[in-house]
This record gives sequence, C-alpha cells and structure tokens, in this order.
Amino acid sequence: MRREALVQQIREKQSFLCVGLDIDLEKIPVHLKDVEDPLWTFGKAIVDATAAYAVAFKPNIAFFETYGQQGWQSLERLMEYIHTTYPEIFTIADAKRGDIGNTATRYAKAFFEQMDFDSITVAPYMGKDSVEPFLAFEDNHTILLGLTSNEGAQDFQYLECDGIPLHQHVLQQSQSWKGSERLMYVVGATRAEALEEIRKSIPDSFLLVPGVGAQGGSLSAVAQHGLNRDCGLLVNSSRGIIYADTTENFAAVAGQKAAELQQQMKTLLQKYAIFSS
Amino acid sequence: MRREALVQQIREKQSFLCVGLDIDLEKIPVHLKDVEDPLWTFGKAIVDATAAYAVAFKPNIAFFETYGQQGWQSLERLMEYIHTTYPEIFTIADAKRGDIGNTATRYAKAFFEQMDFDSITVAPYMGKDSVEPFLAFEDNHTILLGLTSNEGAQDFQYLECDGIPLHQHVLQQSQSWKGSERLMYVVGATRAEALEEIRKSIPDSFLLVPGVGAQGGSLSAVAQHGLNRDCGLLVNSSRGIIYADTTENFAAVAGQKAAELQQQMKTLLQKYAIFSS
Repeated sequence: MRREALVQQIREKQSFLCVGLDIDLEKIPVHLKDVEDPLWTFGKAIVDATAAYAVAFKPNIAFFETYGQQGWQSLERLMEYIHTTYPEIFTIADAKRGDIGNTATRYAKAFFEQMDFDSITVAPYMGKDSVEPFLAFEDNHTILLGLTSNEGAQDFQYLECDGIPLHQHVLQQSQSWKGSERLMYVVGATRAEALEEIRKSIPDSFLLVPGVGAQGGSLSAVAQHGLNRDCGLLVNSSRGIIYADTTENFAAVAGQKAAELQQQMKTLLQKYAIFSS
Repeated sequence: MRREALVQQIREKQSFLCVGLDIDLEKIPVHLKDVEDPLWTFGKAIVDATAAYAVAFKPNIAFFETYGQQGWQSLERLMEYIHTTYPEIFTIADAKRGDIGNTATRYAKAFFEQMDFDSITVAPYMGKDSVEPFLAFEDNHTILLGLTSNEGAQDFQYLECDGIPLHQHVLQQSQSWKGSERLMYVVGATRAEALEEIRKSIPDSFLLVPGVGAQGGSLSAVAQHGLNRDCGLLVNSSRGIIYADTTENFAAVAGQKAAELQQQMKTLLQKYAIFSS
C-alpha cells in the first residue's frame, strides 16, 4: 500500500488507530479455547468488530510463531482474510526482524510476498545493509525501531553518542538510506515530550506509537507533539481493545473500545486542523 | 544443553566448528530442487556429512521462514532429526529476534520449547527486558549481537558513547543482567584485533564468530585473539561448506571441507594448549 492510500483512509475514517493483535491463548474468552483454530477465530472476530474504526492491524508475530507451523498457518489464514475482506486496511507485521543482505531479503519475502503485509517492524542495530533490503520493496513500508516504550530503552537508546542520543542517530542516519521515503518509525509514547525532539529529525515520517493506554501514554499528548499535516501517526492499542471483555460479548466490547478511541482521534484531528484544507 | 556439555564436545572432537545452514533453494544442487521437501533433504544430507567434524549447527531461520508454514514444517522436521540423531550437537536458531517481556517469552518458547533449540541469536537494541526473558530458560543460551561483521556495523555499533563504542556498552551492561552466565555473543571476525578488546570485557563468554572464510576473516587470527581456557569460540562457516560443490557429490565435499576446518581447529587448539591440562 502506498502512503497516499493510508493517508486517504485516515482522512475518511477520521482515525489513526492501529489494533494490535497480540493474541494470547491464555487471555481469550474461555468459550474459544477449544475451537479448532482459536488464534484465527479470535483474530477474525476482533478484526470484524474493529475494522470500521481502525486504519491498521498489527499482528504480533511472536504470538503465532510460538506455536510453530500451526501458528504460522493461523497467521496466514488471518492475513488472507484481512486482505480479502478489508483491503483498505494497512497491515503491520510486528516482527522486529533484523539481519543482513540476502537474509533480510528472505524475511522481507516472508512477510511482504508470502503473506502480503504492507509493512514490518525492523531493528536497527546492524545498520544500513540490514534495513535497505526491506526498503527495496516499493509497495511496502519498513518501520524501524527508533525509541521504544519499554524500560530497557534506557539501556542503549538514550546513550549519548557524539552529543546526541543513540535513537537520534538511528532516526537521522536512516533518512539517508536508499528507499528512506518508505521508512516509518516505532516511537514509544511514554515520554510524549520526547516526540517533539523526534519530530525535529523526522518531521514527515509516519510514527507507529505503542504504549498508549495500557502502557500509560496519553493520546492527547501524543497528538499534540506527534501530528503532522498527513496525520503522521498510527497509535496502537492492543490489550485495551482485544481483552476489554472476556465473555461471549468480547467482540462487541472490543468494537466499542475501538469506536471510543476513534472518536477521541477524530476530535484531535479536528482540534489540530489536520485535513482541514 | 549446559555449557559443560558443549565444552566437553569441543574437547572430544577437537573442533569449534559451527556449520551454518543457510539453505538457499537457488544454490542447492539441481537434482534436489524437485524433491518433495528440498530444504529438509539438503539439510539432512549436510548434517549427516558434517556432524563428525562440527560441534554446532546453525539454521538461518529466514531461509525457512521465507516459505511460510511450509518452511517452518521443514525446519521442525530438520530440528527433530538433528536432536534424535546427533543429540550431542549444540543447535543455534539464527533468528536475531528482539522484543519485550511477554513477547520475548513467546519467541523463546517457539525456539527453545517448540523446536528444542539450545540457543538463539538476539538483538540488543531494546535492552535488558528484551533479553532477560530468553535468559530465564536455564538449559538454553542466548547469543546477543555484539559486533557484527557486515558493513552496516559501522553505522551504530562503533559510535562512541561516553568514551567507549556502543558494542562495548552492550557487552559490558549485558553482563549484569539476570542469567548472564547463559549469554554468548555474536562477534564478527572482520577485524580480528577487535576481538582482543572484546575479550577484555567478556573473557569467559563463548563467542559465535561468523565471517570466517567467505566473509574474509582469518581463522588463525580469530583463534589467536579469541580463544579462552574453555575454547570459548564457535566459528561459523556456511557457504564454504554447504555450497562447496553443487553436483550429486555435494554432501561428500561438504564433509571434506568441514574436516579440513576441523583439522585446522585441532592444530590451533594444540598450538594454544587449550585442554592441555
């Protein structure tokens, strides 16, 4: 999917909500645990309930991979359903892969070709030649880890290197890589004021923001510091939507939670006059 | 597998050879391309031909994952064969995963429980809470990316942060993490003299060294700067062994190449009097 199509969808839905599909078999409703393919059954129900309010779906690959080939089968099935039923929705493989050259190309093919994801999250530690193979796919986006929202982000991402923190090196250097117009960035929301500094380095890029809601970030602070003229944000919510209810009514409640976030996002898009022209 | 069992195997085989299973369907012998499961058929033949000379096998996960659930099926089949037939050999999932908390645990379960790998390669960018979930598995090892051998290693890994390069921060900080006695490190061989600095920070750890052979590193330089009293090295060779011949004789030639490396390693272990007591 091209950036313009994503922006158009955000404008139409007045939403920049990404629903994170971290499908944990220990947390799904009891009545679904014994169905033939619970990952798929639960995932499909959440997708159907939230598609009207979300612009992106983000399966967390670990939660499928942990079941080996069976998990991959469920993931492929879910991706095929999303693409067929909601082709306008942007899909993110939250895989955090990172390897060089030919190996990176193999990962890219797994997600971009085998499963037709629009984008994938990628780790930066190995540098340019571990990211450019993903960027070579012209209809896809590569979402580089910039500043993450976990406690361990303190260990290396904030280290001062030649006067600026490591994550700023990642943001700035990556802008010179081939295909960088198809880069997006993971930027945690735990320190919304950090978003201001980040926007100085990458004013135009889309940011995938985890950590709003369950992880404590504030949606309005993220919007204040992160919005750009194309919106430029995809704000993820997982647990707050998909496990909001664990009865047979779970899907309807997930839809309500997604709708509430969409309403807040609509208000923020209007407040900051995004798409007002 | 515990460290002692790995060291014992190195002593017995007089080898610290890791055979990298980067199985590329475009590079395997023509006569294998149309068999029912070429990843498995080629992999099994290489494993059987080299097991006498190698102490570790390292499947490159991308080369399986690129075929989706079918690739995972081949990988599971190959791993089951290795464990059944060569239970003494140390197995490395070259997966370079990296995510936090519960997600990291899912990746660990995929490789350590679902497929019974002894170890996995992991990226450090997200810090302590992205690595400790792997270290919590007491019979497994986590192989952290320290200094990689690709060109892009220059982008971030050599950045000076508070007076020392980023990769030194990774080596030094990670030593304080819970379960760090089960940490190993990926250290590229392109600059063997860098190994000397690295050994000052982590004298006792095992190092997984790619980049010897096809990527240009010298085995004797690696041994000179990297060996410790337990050997402490796993030197990987992939292309130089598995694609040394592409006729029907490929497996026998792979075995010869592995045997040649084992002989060189034996000479080096004797030269530096490792296990001489």
